Order: sequence, then structure tokens, then C-alpha cells
Amino acid sequence: MSKTVDLNADMGESFGPWTMGDDAALLEVVSSANIACGFHAGDPDVMAATMARARDHGVGIGAHPGFDDLQGFGRRRMQVPQDTLANLIRYQLGAAQGMARAAGTEVRHLKLHGALSNMASVDHAMARACYEAALELDPDLIIMVLAATAMEEVVRELGCNWCGEIFADRAYNDDGTLVDRSLPGAVIHDPALAGPRILQMVQEGAIITESGARIPTAIDTICLHGDTPTAVELARAVRRALSEGGIEVRAFDGRRG
Amino acid sequence: MSKTVDLNADMGESFGPWTMGDDAALLEVVSSANIACGFHAGDPDVMAATMARARDHGVGIGAHPGFDDLQGFGRRRMQVPQDTLANLIRYQLGAAQGMARAAGTEVRHLKLHGALSNMASVDHAMARACYEAALELDPDLIIMVLAATAMEEVVRELGCNWCGEIFADRAYNDDGTLVDRSLPGAVIHDPALAGPRILQMVQEGAIITESGARIPTAIDTICLHGDTPTAVELARAVRRALSEGGIEVRAFDGRRG
Amino acid sequence: MSKTVDLNADMGESFGPWTMGDDAALLEVVSSANIACGFHAGDPDVMAATMARARDHGVGIGAHPGFDDLQGFGRRRMQVPQDTLANLIRYQLGAAQGMARAAGTEVRHLKLHGALSNMASVDHAMARACYEAALELDPDLIIMVLAATAMEEVVRELGCNWCGEIFADRAYNDDGTLVDRSLPGAVIHDPALAGPRILQMVQEGAIITESGARIPTAIDTICLHGDTPTAVELARAVRRALSEGGIEVRAFDGRRG
Amino acid sequence: MSKTVDLNADMGESFGPWTMGDDAALLEVVSSANIACGFHAGDPDVMAATMARARDHGVGIGAHPGFDDLQGFGRRRMQVPQDTLANLIRYQLGAAQGMARAAGTEVRHLKLHGALSNMASVDHAMARACYEAALELDPDLIIMVLAATAMEEVVRELGCNWCGEIFADRAYNDDGTLVDRSLPGAVIHDPALAGPRILQMVQEGAIITESGARIPTAIDTICLHGDTPTAVELARAVRRALSEGGIEVRAFDGRRG
Repeated sequence: MSKTVDLNADMGESFGPWTMGDDAALLEVVSSANIACGFHAGDPDVMAATMARARDHGVGIGAHPGFDDLQGFGRRRMQVPQDTLANLIRYQLGAAQGMARAAGTEVRHLKLHGALSNMASVDHAMARACYEAALELDPDLIIMVLAATAMEEVVRELGCNWCGEIFADRAYNDDGTLVDRSLPGAVIHDPALAGPRILQMVQEGAIITESGARIPTAIDTICLHGDTPTAVELARAVRRALSEGGIEVRAFDGRRG
Repeated sequence: MSKTVDLNADMGESFGPWTMGDDAALLEVVSSANIACGFHAGDPDVMAATMARARDHGVGIGAHPGFDDLQGFGRRRMQVPQDTLANLIRYQLGAAQGMARAAGTEVRHLKLHGALSNMASVDHAMARACYEAALELDPDLIIMVLAATAMEEVVRELGCNWCGEIFADRAYNDDGTLVDRSLPGAVIHDPALAGPRILQMVQEGAIITESGARIPTAIDTICLHGDTPTAVELARAVRRALSEGGIEVRAFDGRRG
Repeated sequence: MSKTVDLNADMGESFGPWTMGDDAALLEVVSSANIACGFHAGDPDVMAATMARARDHGVGIGAHPGFDDLQGFGRRRMQVPQDTLANLIRYQLGAAQGMARAAGTEVRHLKLHGALSNMASVDHAMARACYEAALELDPDLIIMVLAATAMEEVVRELGCNWCGEIFADRAYNDDGTLVDRSLPGAVIHDPALAGPRILQMVQEGAIITESGARIPTAIDTICLHGDTPTAVELARAVRRALSEGGIEVRAFDGRRG
Repeated sequence: MSKTVDLNADMGESFGPWTMGDDAALLEVVSSANIACGFHAGDPDVMAATMARARDHGVGIGAHPGFDDLQGFGRRRMQVPQDTLANLIRYQLGAAQGMARAAGTEVRHLKLHGALSNMASVDHAMARACYEAALELDPDLIIMVLAATAMEEVVRELGCNWCGEIFADRAYNDDGTLVDRSLPGAVIHDPALAGPRILQMVQEGAIITESGARIPTAIDTICLHGDTPTAVELARAVRRALSEGGIEVRAFDGRRG
């Protein structure tokens, strides 16, 4: 059996008259789409159009909930009580499920967005509150977690369906965290570099850090971006490198435990 | 078999720090609750709390979507394209379904709110766009319509599950429309008047107009209010009059065709 | 004394992470900027940045208030009571004045946006409510009106400072209204056509309709767009044609009565 | 010359169809009103009505800006860049100034709301960013600060007009911070207690802490609440105690340095 991996990207981040990202290009590259749910980006029209396109491309649909902060695009940290967080997740996931059902498809996975994701990746209780709320709506939902973070601990505890994610364009520290964006080399812009690097990580089943260390982890999906032409180019390069390396790109099935 | 009728009221219309209505009192009176979905009122926390209470009281839960207009409480008419309307309904209904599922219950019916309802009650195409969108999410959903309006024509055409609604506290013209609020007698405030009047309409299966004319129609549910102590008193009087008249109050089952 | 005319364009229509229009290019062309005030587009950061740039280019700053409808970009008609409209104008204009003052500059003019403008251009009472509210904040404010509409009637009645506007890229009917967008020739895309056409109107002091008729009116400013590269090209062509025709482009002073 | 002190309260915290607080009762008690500016509470209609009432009562008007978080009532901490904070203040203060001008009155002071205030009271740079932005709009504006906090340090540094505030219903620790709400005695509910206590503090010109220690500080204004009948009763008791103690209640003039 050949090895497989998923490629995911955030989509449906337009809002009203404003467009963002090159969703059309990304849909040719990825196997899963994380679709904004109207709180930090996306509106019901954008969601409907994005889901229809993802469905037509056979791309797996995920709900991508974020903080209720349109101006800040969900990237500003907010101190929100856990009960409120749980309801925020339930509401956005429910809306996404309803819109998917109306489009004759379904929400397969959930990925937290922006500051909500950053905070939950180091806050066990917060991640748990979010994921438990989501699983109440669908116990088979696949939770996408940042590999080797508190998020992964939580999904293992919950025994739910999950998949582990690494970034195609970010360098890693030896403790599994991302190299700070302000440091040189933190963000990888060169497609020629990104492709082989990701192929190697997938083949080894480990994050390869900046120092060359290996962190064995579940690499089920690779996060790509489409906000710039360069990002789309890098996304294509990663897909090409994986294919040439004999790795099949297809939506994850989720793993348990 | 004894005759039955449903009593419904709008609920969950608080938002953030602001409360509205006496939901606790109404839950002792009604058999169905129309719960705001976050666009004109309600927020995810309010929805969750309201659904939990309705569930605990055995009160049927309905989604009550409105225009995206918090300041105007969904009461200001907006010119929204039909595709956008359909997505607005899908989104809000989906969110309500998700939150209901998380609370171990379900959304049984849908009722349009405010200006959206006023406009759809005289606009066949608009009502149809809204109802078709809702039925895509759940083909068994019960659509609550203003009896003897364009809404009723549409649900009959669609052949979907529906129930017809009249108002406990509003006088009717001979063409089935409501007497304009600016006219004397348009709004009924006296509980001693409202109770027997509604009992008679339910017994006759007809709206009794101001002039005394009868408009035979499907009276499956009576709309009550809880925004003032007087309104709650009137609601209780209607329930009492129905019980004393041998009409059982319980959630509608919906009718087809 | 040589003839002068103003060129204006809507600007500052980005929001949060989303950009719109090519403000940088337009600032090289126009003499007045209509800056969105946060309700249909623009946020405080976008307003501050746009005002600073307009100030640095010596471009006159206008407040461009719209309906409170971000998803619809202020283009959806809303039925709003006149008192609420007046407060909507006061609030947005006040915010714009404050931000301009903080940037060491000032708001010279006001122009209504989108559906608010469309509605007010044929609704005398609505235009009056909006303009009176604005003049309460600054009696010397210059009100930009669509020439030969109800708006112009109102400013003449009020005896306030005003300027009349025509569109560079729209064809006119003989009654002064715009040719419906759905008809061929309604929108002018060809820079080679637009330039000489506008020059002629300015020289004659009259709108030249599709049929060739003349509607003498106050042509103080020409509305340009920057939402597409073609629009920017057309804007440049209009400026060039005016300059070559001996018309000086500079911000209007406003006229009274 | 007799001693004077100001009494202030937050007002205009209704929104759309939702009312909050008993502004009518408070206007009989206070000499200054902190009026919400539409981001965490208040809308243009509420602002206009509240300012008109404050003006009619001869109560000083203040802008009370908060985070852009309606559901959380501006009480949830948000991580917002300082430039964005400054523009948030400029926008809300400008809007308030415009609405005040339209009502024939003016904004005399500024007080930060909720989480924005809590954060700025211990964050010197944040307080400075907010206050400098406000003073750009009006260099004579009186900044209301929590006495003996980082806010007071900042206004002294800026050399601007300011006034120091203490709470009528909160117990103080020996370091000038408030006793945590979760501790017994943290909130004072007894009018009979609150009145004499505040009178003594004003007479001594010092905060009297729970332990009986004195923190000499500028007590220019006392913060009252109107969100419950008890709070209004306490507010009246404080005013009565001050009057009986020979302290005149009137709006602060602001102090410099």
C-alpha cells in the first residue's frame, strides 16, 4: 500500500465585496479545504460558493471557526470564557454543516483559525473545550490538530477522529514549535526548497527541525497557503514533489487514539 | 379525539449583556419556542441557554431567522437578493440545528422574523426562496406560516410539513391581513377579551375578523408575546381559556399539502 | 480666469485584512477623495491611513457615509427611520472629522454612499434629513450632490455650500437619470471616449445625454473609479483630456444657493 | 471656598431594541455622564438621546470608548496593536464629539471602558497611546483616570487636563488596587455604609483602604452605577452624604500636571 498525505488550505476567506486568496488555484492543489464560518471571514454567500466549488473538485470540506472579530481577521487574542468558546464553535460548525448539507455534501473536519488556534495549541483546557463542543455535533468529525502540540494531546485523550498537520512554509524549533516569524529563515518562500523538505518529512514520518533534529509525529496533512502568487507556486511545488516521491495526495481518513 | 392547538412565542432575543422578554414565564405557557439565531438577536450563548430551557420544559424548538440587522432588531426592510436570502436562512438554520444537537434536542420548525416575515407574507417568490433553502437542510422541518397569506400558498405548493399561525393579540381585516397598528383596536391588550376570542377561533377553525366575518383557515398555533408583564398575562389567559374550553395545548405535528 | 473642475473618487474602502481599489493610483489623479466611514466599508485604521495619504497629496477629504451594512457594502436598500438616518450621518461624519483632525487636516465635503445615495437622489425628505444632520456638525461643509436630482433641490433650499457631480463613465437619459446598467452603452469603458466627452460637458456646463440633448447644470466635480485597472486608465484619460482642454483640475470651493 | 466633587456614571449603554441601566434616575444624581460610543454599547440613536438628556440636566458629557466587542460588552480583553487602539479612540471620540455638537453641546471628558480600562490601568504605554490619540482631537479634553494607577502617571507626564476617580462601591487594597470581586466585602452594597465612607475619603483627600490605611490622591470624581435599583439607591445615598457633609456636587474642571 502506497503512502498518502493530505494537503489543506484555508479558503472562503472573502467577505461581502472583498475577495481574499486564490481559491480557484488552490482547489487544483489541495485535498482538503478549511472554510471560514462567518465570524472572522466568510459570509453565508461566500461559504455557499466555496463549498460548492470544493464539492465539485472532490476536495474534503472542513469548518474553520475563529473569534468573532472581522476587523482583526480572528488574529487578535481575545479572553473568552470557555462556555462561550464552546458555543462559538457549536454555532459556527452548525452553520457550516447546514450549508454543506444544502450543497449536498458534508463537513468532514474541523480546524481552529488564527488566534483561537494559536491559543489552543498551548492551552490544553481551551483546546478540549473547543473539540468537545464540536464532537457534540458530530462524534465522527475529524479534528485537525497542529502536530506535537497540546491539541494533539487533547484529541488522543478524547479518543476522537483526528489528523496531524505540519506547515509547508515554516521552519520548526527542536521543541516542535514554529521558529518565530521575526527570525531569518522562519518562513520558507522558495518552492524548490519546500517541496523536497516536505517530501522528506512525510517519508520519515517526522518533523525535521532547523537544526536537523527529527520529531516523529503524525503527518497526515500539510498546510498550504494561497494568499500570494508565490504561495500558490510553493503549494504546487509541494504537491509535485510528493507525487514524484511516490506519495499519493488525498484527503485524510482520520486516525483514532 | 380532543382538539389540540399549539402556543408559540419568540424567545432567546437577549444579546450579550442585554436581556429581552420574560422567557422563563413564557416557557410555562407555550408549547413551541421560536429562537433567534444571532443575526437580529440572540448570540451563541443565549441560543444555548434558551434551547436548554426549552428542552427541559418539553417545549418544541424552532429556528427564527431574521435579517442581519442587530440595531434594527431585524425589523427594518432590506432589499436582499434571493440567493443571499437563501444562504442567510441556511446559515442561521444550520447554526440552530447544530446548537440543538449539542443540547441533545432538535429544531422542529422554522418561522421567519420581523421584516423578513412581513415581506415574505406578501411576496410569494421570497417566501419560496426562504422555505426551499430551509427544507434543503431538513425535508421534514415544519414551516410555520402566517395563515391565509402568500406563505401558506407556498408551503401548500411545496407539499412540505407546515402549520398555520394566528395572533392572539391582533385584530384582523376581512381580507385576512392584520389591522394596521395605528388604528384603534388593532392590538388587543385585555386578557379577558383575548382568551375567549382565541378559543372561539380555534373551535370554529376560522379567523374571526373585526367585522365578525369568518375566514376558515388552518389554526395550528397561536402567537403569544412576553415582552411586557401585560403580554405575559394575556398569554396565560389564552392558555387558560383554551384549557377550560377543552382544547389541549401541545406542540403541532405539522400538516402536509 | 481659467475654468476649473474637481475630480473625485471613493477611497478607503478596504476593511481589516481586505483591500479594495487602487487608492495610490487614484490619489495621483483626483483632487477630492470620498472616504468610507466604517459602516459599509473602511475601519478606523483604514480611515487614518487614507486620510494621511490624501492629506500628503493635497487631495480634499470628504466623509462618505453609508448604511450600516458591511456584507452588502452599503448597496442594499434599507428602510430606516429619518431620525435614525440623521444620527447615522452625524455619527459617521463626526468620526471622520475626528480622525481628520488627528491627522492635522479636515473634512471638507460630504457625499452619500451606495443605496443611501440612490434613495436620497429621488427622495427629497430623505436627502434633507441627511444634509441637515451633517450641517449641524459643520455649517460650512460642502455637500456633494448628484447634479440635477432631488439632492440638488435640497441643497439649494438649504442655502448651504454644495457642489454638483456627474459621472465620467455613465451614460445619461434625457431626464438626467443614469441609463440603466443593464442596457448597452450604459457604462463607458473606453478611455478614448470618456476623456473628450467629459471635457465637452465641462466646457458647455451641461450634461450631454445619450440622445445628444443638453441639460445645463452645475458640473463642479467628476466621479471617477479605481476598482479595476481599466477604471484607473479611464480616470487618467479624463484628467489628461481636461488638462489638454485648458481646464484646471482642483478641489471645488463649493457654491451657495 | 467650599470643597466640590463630581459624581459620574456610565450611561447610554442601551443598544437597538435593548435597554440597560436607569439613565433617567442617574441623571438626577450625577454631574458627569460617560456615554458609550457604539463599539461595546450604544448606537447613534442611543447616543443622541442620551446626550440630549444629559445636556438638559446640565450634566457634563464624556466619551466612553471601548473595544469593538458588542457581545462581550467590551469586557473581554483583546490584544490590539497600539496604532489600532489609537485609531479606535480617535474614531469613537470623534463620533461622540460630532453627535454632541449636533445636540448643541460638547464632549468635556474621556473615560476608557471595561477591559480597555482595566488593561490601560496597569499598562503605561497603552494608556499613553489612548490618551495621546484623544488629545489630538481636543487638547483641552479632560482625561478621567483611575486614581493612583498607571493612568494617573500618564496624564501627569502628558501635562494634560485630567481628573482622578474612585469607586463608591468597591473596597481598596493597600496598594491602591481594587479588592478582588471574588473576596467578601469587595463590593459595597449598603447605601448606609457607602455614603459616609465616600464623604470621609473626599474630606481627607485620600483613598481609605480595607485595612484603614490612607492613600492620598486626587479624588475629583466618584464612580456610581445605575444597573440595579440597589445601585441607584447607593448612588443617591452617596450624593446625600456628600451634601450633608458640606461637599458640593458639580462637574470637575480638570486639573493639570
